[in-house]
Amino acid sequence: MILTVTPNPAIDLTYQVPQILPGASHRVQPPLVRSGGKGINVARVLHHQGLAVRALATAGGDTGKQLAAGLAGIAHRLVPVAAATRRTIALVDAADGQTSIFNEVGAPLQAAEWLALASAVADELQGADLLVGSGSLPAGAPADFYPGLVALARQAGLPVLIDASGSGLLSAASAGADLLKPNRDELHEATGERDLSAGARVLMRLGARRVLVSNGAEGMLAFEAGRAGHLSARLAQPLTGNPTGAGDAAVAGAASLLVSGEDDLQLIVRRAAAWGSAAVLMPTAGEISPQWRQLELDLIVEELS
Amino acid sequence: MILTVTPNPAIDLTYQVPQILPGASHRVQPPLVRSGGKGINVARVLHHQGLAVRALATAGGDTGKQLAAGLAGIAHRLVPVAAATRRTIALVDAADGQTSIFNEVGAPLQAAEWLALASAVADELQGADLLVGSGSLPAGAPADFYPGLVALARQAGLPVLIDASGSGLLSAASAGADLLKPNRDELHEATGERDLSAGARVLMRLGARRVLVSNGAEGMLAFEAGRAGHLSARLAQPLTGNPTGAGDAAVAGAASLLVSGEDDLQLIVRRAAAWGSAAVLMPTAGEISPQWRQLELDLIVEELS
Repeated sequence: MILTVTPNPAIDLTYQVPQILPGASHRVQPPLVRSGGKGINVARVLHHQGLAVRALATAGGDTGKQLAAGLAGIAHRLVPVAAATRRTIALVDAADGQTSIFNEVGAPLQAAEWLALASAVADELQGADLLVGSGSLPAGAPADFYPGLVALARQAGLPVLIDASGSGLLSAASAGADLLKPNRDELHEATGERDLSAGARVLMRLGARRVLVSNGAEGMLAFEAGRAGHLSARLAQPLTGNPTGAGDAAVAGAASLLVSGEDDLQLIVRRAAAWGSAAVLMPTAGEISPQWRQLELDLIVEELS
Repeated sequence: MILTVTPNPAIDLTYQVPQILPGASHRVQPPLVRSGGKGINVARVLHHQGLAVRALATAGGDTGKQLAAGLAGIAHRLVPVAAATRRTIALVDAADGQTSIFNEVGAPLQAAEWLALASAVADELQGADLLVGSGSLPAGAPADFYPGLVALARQAGLPVLIDASGSGLLSAASAGADLLKPNRDELHEATGERDLSAGARVLMRLGARRVLVSNGAEGMLAFEAGRAGHLSARLAQPLTGNPTGAGDAAVAGAASLLVSGEDDLQLIVRRAAAWGSAAVLMPTAGEISPQWRQLELDLIVEELS
């Protein structure tokens, strides 16, 4: 079983707007309401692909109840917190196809709530084979949240995959995460390096074993400690579509192999890139197209120096 | 007691955004969450001014629970319905001060729910002195909803004030509403008349006794059946601020006099314009500035032909 941990989940509201006119009033149909946050999207993809998964997150307030309702069918555990679960608002402009996103920051958790979340992680790890920790942290989060997750997985003898940004990415690397999955912008922002190889090597010098870097339509790069070169996975023709959630699908793809003990980086980056690409073909985050099997075959995986 | 009826209430979410960039992702603080919809805004203003008021609306789903929570302190009755209460999203761009609004249409009610709402109105009218019906209708609403409200008030021997648009405005006029309060655009859209006097006279020919027309920064006009000319209420210097909810405050102002039996149209338009102007000075709908007393004195009310 894959345990996903989402410290800052959200209710995702997606509105289709015929045409967005700044400063105007618009009539819109009710939104698509989804339980989201990166780790929940990862769990949704894995669940739909038939893998055993359990989503662990916090939940509070009326939006927390909506979060729980939206997880029906997916095994989950929600740690109750006082602060209301945050929302994200996506406005899709049908006139130009652009999506504008408004992500609420998460409200701070109380110290006892952080302890309850860590305790729930330790408890759930007893039945798990892989730990995935994903996404942003609410305001005022302890600096050692992601290193703590890595340590808990270590104690349980399990591999751990972290998809975080900023100081969360750096501290997860220092704690010795087995696999990190920043995107190009997150890698640059956290390490200060514009060159993707240089940035990935910063994370590995800190202690990460492997790094997958998602590079938008150009595919993915894969790095591992002790390997001179790196791998590139790309499609001959990049796909167009909705990139929201593609990174989460890539994490799910990597997790789907890691959980079975697969350790070949070439297979891992091929699967991760295939699921990420297959997510671009779907209208909402947390889903991948069944075309992923063909995409996995079509991907060009090369060893670069 | 003033009974306000809101057939299509909403949870109003207002976000402050440092700068809105179309197509981008934005980090935003949690929104201001208010229970809204026009009749609820009217009730909130009246309540804050110390008048006895009761807000009647529908409520459904998790957003319906939020609606109820947001009415704490204001006497209310919520008719439970299956469909979730709609949301409105307001994005205030701090860079240019513009507010973009996204109003969800209300989900259809079941036939039995319309009957339950009408029954609750009839029940609450027993303790009321004035009925105010405000706002849009959910999809698929019966065409006779506002005429039905007028008829129920008539049967109870009470005056009725309706703030509706489109066919709701026309049918409330035909049913003989005592006072209608369209704004300039609603009057034009419903009657086809660009001239405000001509539009108001259409409503009075249909059966309305009086019409207040809010005309933005230019103030208000007041018409009544059998009167040759009309009244204008305006400030020498229009105010700048947030016009959201100004129309609801004007309705509350008119209701605050009608409930005491005041029948002088000049006093009514002066109070309505004062409360509408005082709402422009406040950041959110449902509130008016204590400056309304001075504004009421400052307003220039003239008889025009």
